[in-house]
Amino acid sequence: MEIMNEFDLIEKYFRPLAGPEALGLKDDAAILNVPKGFQLAVTSDTLGAGTHFLGNEKPEHIARKSLRVNLSDLAAMGAKPYAYQLCIAFPEKPKEAWIKKFSAALAADQKKFGIFCSGGDTTVTKGPLTISITAFGLVRENKAVKRSGAKPGDVLVITGPVGDALIGLRILQGKIKTKSVSCVAAYHNPVPRTGVSDIIRAHARAAIDISDGLIADVGHICETSNCAAHIDLQKIKFSKDAAGFIKKGTVKSADLLTGGDDYELALAVPPKNLPGLLKKLSEKGLKPQIIGKFAKGKPAVTVFNKGRKIRLGKGGWTHF
Amino acid sequence: MEIMNEFDLIEKYFRPLAGPEALGLKDDAAILNVPKGFQLAVTSDTLGAGTHFLGNEKPEHIARKSLRVNLSDLAAMGAKPYAYQLCIAFPEKPKEAWIKKFSAALAADQKKFGIFCSGGDTTVTKGPLTISITAFGLVRENKAVKRSGAKPGDVLVITGPVGDALIGLRILQGKIKTKSVSCVAAYHNPVPRTGVSDIIRAHARAAIDISDGLIADVGHICETSNCAAHIDLQKIKFSKDAAGFIKKGTVKSADLLTGGDDYELALAVPPKNLPGLLKKLSEKGLKPQIIGKFAKGKPAVTVFNKGRKIRLGKGGWTHF
Repeated sequence: MEIMNEFDLIEKYFRPLAGPEALGLKDDAAILNVPKGFQLAVTSDTLGAGTHFLGNEKPEHIARKSLRVNLSDLAAMGAKPYAYQLCIAFPEKPKEAWIKKFSAALAADQKKFGIFCSGGDTTVTKGPLTISITAFGLVRENKAVKRSGAKPGDVLVITGPVGDALIGLRILQGKIKTKSVSCVAAYHNPVPRTGVSDIIRAHARAAIDISDGLIADVGHICETSNCAAHIDLQKIKFSKDAAGFIKKGTVKSADLLTGGDDYELALAVPPKNLPGLLKKLSEKGLKPQIIGKFAKGKPAVTVFNKGRKIRLGKGGWTHF
Repeated sequence: MEIMNEFDLIEKYFRPLAGPEALGLKDDAAILNVPKGFQLAVTSDTLGAGTHFLGNEKPEHIARKSLRVNLSDLAAMGAKPYAYQLCIAFPEKPKEAWIKKFSAALAADQKKFGIFCSGGDTTVTKGPLTISITAFGLVRENKAVKRSGAKPGDVLVITGPVGDALIGLRILQGKIKTKSVSCVAAYHNPVPRTGVSDIIRAHARAAIDISDGLIADVGHICETSNCAAHIDLQKIKFSKDAAGFIKKGTVKSADLLTGGDDYELALAVPPKNLPGLLKKLSEKGLKPQIIGKFAKGKPAVTVFNKGRKIRLGKGGWTHF
């Protein structure tokens, strides 16, 4: 069933997503309130079918991923989710059934993460489905956790296992044959770490989400903090499924550390804050891992395996 | 010349657009400050090649239009431009020369309108160039000018002539042959009325930008304010060029009132505020027009010609 036009579509499916600040999506702009003593964290991500997702995912998967990749960025700043702008370029006159599922998934995520839609824009182009979300978070004045705060001696912690999303993608692409579904779920439904933003802010000096791959993103902390990072490959605990695939030779550990699409956070933590951080993250149900440390030196990430430096070559790790 | 990758592109051309709040575009999110006593107006517009612009425009035209359509929405709320997020889906690996001109035009507009880039995202899809901008404005607490404030008896004022952009589009499409360029400029380079936001806020009870066409947008004020609007066709002053085209029969006045892509504002003004409004807008170089009034009645826009109701039929006005 074809829907009537843009205004009908907004009326029926997007208006119910709007908070009061959105003025019913009936005005030229939304009016957001930033409470005294807070700042507004702002982040945008554009996801295109065929580039950032396969395109044949269910509408609810696309909805969740589009919103959550942004929430993950807010989490990395230690900000609490507040609102978001939703811009969609549809590839053709969209099907009502698709919009219905898409908006229902957004509604469920709004409840889950305490966020509302403040506005946006919908249009139709001759290209693939393209979704740009700009998300807003609230963070106490001057308390945002930046990438640039790491210092030599800080411990490198990640909030959970890496690599499952890459395995999930390969399963969906038919490159890995398996009956396991947990990695596919990790790819489809990333879980942004917004629930622990207070803990991150209280304990970490720098944070980043590892959606571009662990090595690349820890590298970003190194560049902005002007220090080195040492990762100990032996300390990285992969998920049970991922460990199984590594053991069978189905995937390489190097791929999992560079693959991206994971939405855990990498943190630089002063040693004195470490016990408190690990305790509180564990109490929230996370499985944080100490995987290395920051050190003096040129901004670069070095990986060690049993004390020996190794490096990424084509197809996996090679020794220096 | 092909540019290297997304990071190089950001580094060379987009980082210089960033304000300090953008943290050098090097973090997961920007951190915006909303001063005490202010609220943040937020608006988004997505423009796609082949849908919202022809696609063969110069990069500077596309840059200006993408930003200014958003600034126009801020102006309609009585908000002062503050910052914007820039999301671009490129249709192919973008040419450096294109990006250079595009970013230079944004830099010039940032200076002109007192705004900076707070972040965004760039990606490449298989579709046409698609630009989503989310713009932020500051407005004094509870002073935003909404669509819903019009009352019967208010005067309907527009801040300048309508219809030039539609004529410009038809010239570019080859549907109108002329040597006149002013209408083409109106299409390419809309001028958002951000410079008069203080005046709008002080004098108008409701405002909207007329980018969807005068009749449709005044209709939006009627719907949200629950009143009628009467427009007097005789009172509408078209630009010299537009009047000439109407006289020659090249365009119909009805088309100009419904065409869209104009970025003047339509205002609902209490009669006592009218002299002050007209004087102050004129001092700012604008040519405001009183074109009708708001009245009791069902939310609808009625156009009168020499005292007789007329209505839009296929191809122009028809009498009831």
